[in-house]
Amino acid sequence: MSEWLQKGELVAGVDIGGTKVQATIFNHKFEPVGESRKKMQSKKGPVPAEARVLATIHEALEAAGSPAIKGIGAGSPGPLDPTTGVIIDTPNIAWKNFPLADVLSKEFGVPVAVDNDVNMGTYGEWCFGEVQNAKDVVGVFPGTGIGGGIIIGGKMLHGFSGAAGEIGHMTILPDGPYCGCGKRGCLESLASRIAVSKELIAIAVRGDAPYILENCGTDITKVRSSVIAKAIEAGEKMVENEVRRAAYFVGIAVANLINILSPEAVVLGGGMVEAMEALYLEEVKRAIKEHAMPFLRKGVKVAPARLGDNAVVMGAARLIAERLRK
Amino acid sequence: MSEWLQKGELVAGVDIGGTKVQATIFNHKFEPVGESRKKMQSKKGPVPAEARVLATIHEALEAAGSPAIKGIGAGSPGPLDPTTGVIIDTPNIAWKNFPLADVLSKEFGVPVAVDNDVNMGTYGEWCFGEVQNAKDVVGVFPGTGIGGGIIIGGKMLHGFSGAAGEIGHMTILPDGPYCGCGKRGCLESLASRIAVSKELIAIAVRGDAPYILENCGTDITKVRSSVIAKAIEAGEKMVENEVRRAAYFVGIAVANLINILSPEAVVLGGGMVEAMEALYLEEVKRAIKEHAMPFLRKGVKVAPARLGDNAVVMGAARLIAERLRK
Repeated sequence: MSEWLQKGELVAGVDIGGTKVQATIFNHKFEPVGESRKKMQSKKGPVPAEARVLATIHEALEAAGSPAIKGIGAGSPGPLDPTTGVIIDTPNIAWKNFPLADVLSKEFGVPVAVDNDVNMGTYGEWCFGEVQNAKDVVGVFPGTGIGGGIIIGGKMLHGFSGAAGEIGHMTILPDGPYCGCGKRGCLESLASRIAVSKELIAIAVRGDAPYILENCGTDITKVRSSVIAKAIEAGEKMVENEVRRAAYFVGIAVANLINILSPEAVVLGGGMVEAMEALYLEEVKRAIKEHAMPFLRKGVKVAPARLGDNAVVMGAARLIAERLRK
Repeated sequence: MSEWLQKGELVAGVDIGGTKVQATIFNHKFEPVGESRKKMQSKKGPVPAEARVLATIHEALEAAGSPAIKGIGAGSPGPLDPTTGVIIDTPNIAWKNFPLADVLSKEFGVPVAVDNDVNMGTYGEWCFGEVQNAKDVVGVFPGTGIGGGIIIGGKMLHGFSGAAGEIGHMTILPDGPYCGCGKRGCLESLASRIAVSKELIAIAVRGDAPYILENCGTDITKVRSSVIAKAIEAGEKMVENEVRRAAYFVGIAVANLINILSPEAVVLGGGMVEAMEALYLEEVKRAIKEHAMPFLRKGVKVAPARLGDNAVVMGAARLIAERLRK
């Protein structure tokens, strides 16, 4: 039995992304008892996306033997309103002012908690991962973008807009590269997977990264984290240097967050970190040492995310369980 | 009568700085009823500094007619431990592990609340200034250094180390100018009064700022905020551009804080802001527009500090009053 659920009580965690959706049913010990994953096909518009999410949850319930559940927690890209559970505007899913919490609550007849997917992932790591119970935690997830989640006093930080934690758009190099958001020198423009891939393609086309060239050609979308990791294993020094450069910028952002928030722990996740954990964390830690104040960085734990793909569904399940208990 | 103090109840607010100390006795409406200010002579060591602080509080009490007080709130440079009231290490006052709360409590026989001076100042502005009651507030005070205070959910943010809010050491320009902290490209290295003054002296010595040259010579310590303001009024365009450059960097830092924390209000204070408020806020707002995400900057109030020198004593007095009430 856990603190939050009685024996026999079940909750669902849902992770809604631009490319895939996952639903997992958890028992009172937060062990998975049923799961479903689907591709999202979200570009076909808001209605198919909604149907896809509902079908995934129904399938996860079937996989668990169609039990009754007490509630649903769902992580979605934002910006969204965590109080009302309305998705305000999510370009990748074509939802605009979409009342996700109400839609799920109506379909399944249970209370629903909705929050930003990165917040839910950070919360999952804080509840179940290596940074468990640390006082104040920052989660950083470099991927196509760079997401951030902040937990202060055991609660996700939402701020005035509801969308706090946009650390990917921290300006780190004024007049730096253009970012997807339209401004320049954001962390994302310097260290997202796209930022790394574009450099690697340039290195490859110049003939300095044969492994990348052979496996990805000159197509930036082919440069996946696993390929990058293998190129580094194959001894491609310029590929390694490029990843180190990006990781160091992530480390500068983390150092800034330490100087501002003074968290006890920082958790780093996402595909690039997972594929090249040792190298990535080495650069992040070096940047923290060089850019965070000694008094504030002292004793700060820098840990890799441990829940992988399940961080969001676990954080979401835990959040709804806590809400039900209160 | 206020929410926090009964009629007839008094508290003291104390502002301890490297160069001066101020103590003010407040009535239940947080109106000042007695005050004393002294130079700190803090370089003479920890004991004279302690004696100076005690004497200032005694004089403020005398000025108020030697009434009984219910408690003392004190703001001091940090790092310090806000829980125990121990000043850990404050180079400008030669205090090391100095138990300020205990010393004051013993001398005056009342409960004492100690916090960072910038936190107390931000708290004062949040309690009594233009950003009153805003949900989540960031205070930025550019001066010799650049101090920051963060209020989340009505409480000062301390974090794991107790010293959160070191926004002056946010890295904004990697490989930028050296900072007093030893690293490079901190906000302070780009926008503190020293950062501005060094550029103005260079401009003056080149003959491009006659007003500065006439009034300050080539001595960087002579370049005060009031002189800078007058040089700009006198039409010295390069002086104005330099202040705008610094204010814009402060604005980038504020934009980063908006992206990270999503506060409802930002309050800017300190000598430079006070002396050149319109121009300074114009650049800060421009940087916010260019560097903060639209959804997070929407509706954020950017306000000048209104309490001037009294922000710290007022915030400190309010804090101890709240603690007494709880």
